[in-house]
Amino acid sequence: MIYQPSFFEKKINEEIANLTFKKSPKNLFKPIKYILSLGGKRVRPVLALMSTNLFSDEIEQTIAPAIGIEIFHNFSLLHDDVMDKSDLRRGKATVHKKWNENVAILSGDAMLIEAYKHVSCVPEKYLSDILTIFSETAMEVCEGQQLDMDFETRFDVKKSEYIEMIRLKTAVLLACALKIGAILGGAFPEEADYLYQFGINMGIAFQLKDDLLDVYGDPKKFGKKIGGDILNNKKTWLLISALKKADANQEKILMRWLEAENFDPKEKIDAVKKIYDALKLKKAAEKQIEKYYLEALDCLSQVNVADDRKTELMILSENLMYREK
Amino acid sequence: MIYQPSFFEKKINEEIANLTFKKSPKNLFKPIKYILSLGGKRVRPVLALMSTNLFSDEIEQTIAPAIGIEIFHNFSLLHDDVMDKSDLRRGKATVHKKWNENVAILSGDAMLIEAYKHVSCVPEKYLSDILTIFSETAMEVCEGQQLDMDFETRFDVKKSEYIEMIRLKTAVLLACALKIGAILGGAFPEEADYLYQFGINMGIAFQLKDDLLDVYGDPKKFGKKIGGDILNNKKTWLLISALKKADANQEKILMRWLEAENFDPKEKIDAVKKIYDALKLKKAAEKQIEKYYLEALDCLSQVNVADDRKTELMILSENLMYREK
Repeated sequence: MIYQPSFFEKKINEEIANLTFKKSPKNLFKPIKYILSLGGKRVRPVLALMSTNLFSDEIEQTIAPAIGIEIFHNFSLLHDDVMDKSDLRRGKATVHKKWNENVAILSGDAMLIEAYKHVSCVPEKYLSDILTIFSETAMEVCEGQQLDMDFETRFDVKKSEYIEMIRLKTAVLLACALKIGAILGGAFPEEADYLYQFGINMGIAFQLKDDLLDVYGDPKKFGKKIGGDILNNKKTWLLISALKKADANQEKILMRWLEAENFDPKEKIDAVKKIYDALKLKKAAEKQIEKYYLEALDCLSQVNVADDRKTELMILSENLMYREK
Repeated sequence: MIYQPSFFEKKINEEIANLTFKKSPKNLFKPIKYILSLGGKRVRPVLALMSTNLFSDEIEQTIAPAIGIEIFHNFSLLHDDVMDKSDLRRGKATVHKKWNENVAILSGDAMLIEAYKHVSCVPEKYLSDILTIFSETAMEVCEGQQLDMDFETRFDVKKSEYIEMIRLKTAVLLACALKIGAILGGAFPEEADYLYQFGINMGIAFQLKDDLLDVYGDPKKFGKKIGGDILNNKKTWLLISALKKADANQEKILMRWLEAENFDPKEKIDAVKKIYDALKLKKAAEKQIEKYYLEALDCLSQVNVADDRKTELMILSENLMYREK
């Protein structure tokens, strides 16, 4: 039986809504319920379940680690929001805004522990392997966040460094979810590794798409404000490419905007976007996304299960790639 | 063969000095090496090894989880220092002072993950049990820290609440180290539980002793400045007892000092200490410490191993109880 991603998403949302924590201290546990209630696409746990379902109809034992991965993802968002001083997350106040910074730090720590608790709820024969993958991934996500912060004060970030940063910060967790799902579905190690690589490529494409939507998305459809990355001088694939391809005049304009302190936000967004347009970066980015997407599909094709079992995973990744939000 | 605690301490310090991390990103890993290099008594990993050694001469397999527990302890210090805005740790700059807050948050997260990596390095048959204990303990330590912060703005904290807070914040990790050590030594569950209870009682006594040294310690021997808790209005056992036992006049004086904003530190310490003296709180606290210490020894006596194997553990706990620093 092949389940629909929407079925898995519903199941994950139910499980998350039913998570119970101790009543006290409430400043520790309420923020956890809060951030988990803000929703999101639940991509990672859904991928874990779909990956198990590639190999097996028994998906129950993947639910706990899938929830653990989603809790870990939300932990990383919570602490990232403190570090980035973000006020909003999914349109709602971030934890450090609604409570305070100390509450955000500590309830984040508690979420990381809670994540491990759930990830550890797997059959004993798989426990050691799954913990190894999860811990390595969790560490890589921290490395990605540190690189992202390091890039803030640098203007010489290379494309390869950027790709490595988003591999760590975004892609490895998707890949980890798929690999854990595969292991629990009884996949051979080689197949679990192909799914991991599928996740890496899909994750990079996913983040490049996010960067693109930040500039070229439809404000009515995209959840966040358009141009946020431009205003924050974020060293995205687009900005790095622009700095590389720009002629002397374009470079001067770009650098002036990057260094500007007082400006009209709309004016900055328009000016930078105009240079992106002149350099045809939208098309170039789409080509990059396509490259990683095709690489992902190639990895999936190496997994030795009937094609009809792969259909849902292919549709989901296509949707993520060509999404407008 | 029964090893000396000093042998274990040396072994732990060697292992910690040899811990290697990736070279990059250096802002993520350097702070971890830094805080771990600041030393400390290494009480927790030493207890884990001593606990294994109660039951077995094979102590090698306890080293990795013992290191994991020490890394966890230092993680909690790192994040607590951010939350408490402490400038110094063991006489050196705290991580958020030496680097910055974001570095402290993220390298703390990485330490928590690193702790799990080490704790997971145990024989497969013990892995699930050990992870369960470790995760529960880690969560309790977070609860203890949250309660500690909650108490900052309260004047009605009860002694029982304070004891519960220090049980969570301090005692459970000592108890966890002992229990994990016992399990890895091949102890029966009942014996591992007695060692856990030994750790709980010793941990509470240990923290009460710390509170006492903060006020009555010899500044030449005690590592920290005397009177720090008084200056910070910390709701220690001493202050809670004072507020409870004080007559109307003493209460007025105490409350005036608790609410004072501009004062000479020495004057505040002397005034509060004078009330503690009048209420004979030093003696009362020593009686409490003795009570928990005897309870701890009682738990240890229930552990079914030859008395000579327990000697080192008894000496160590006596030293911790009657220490002057």
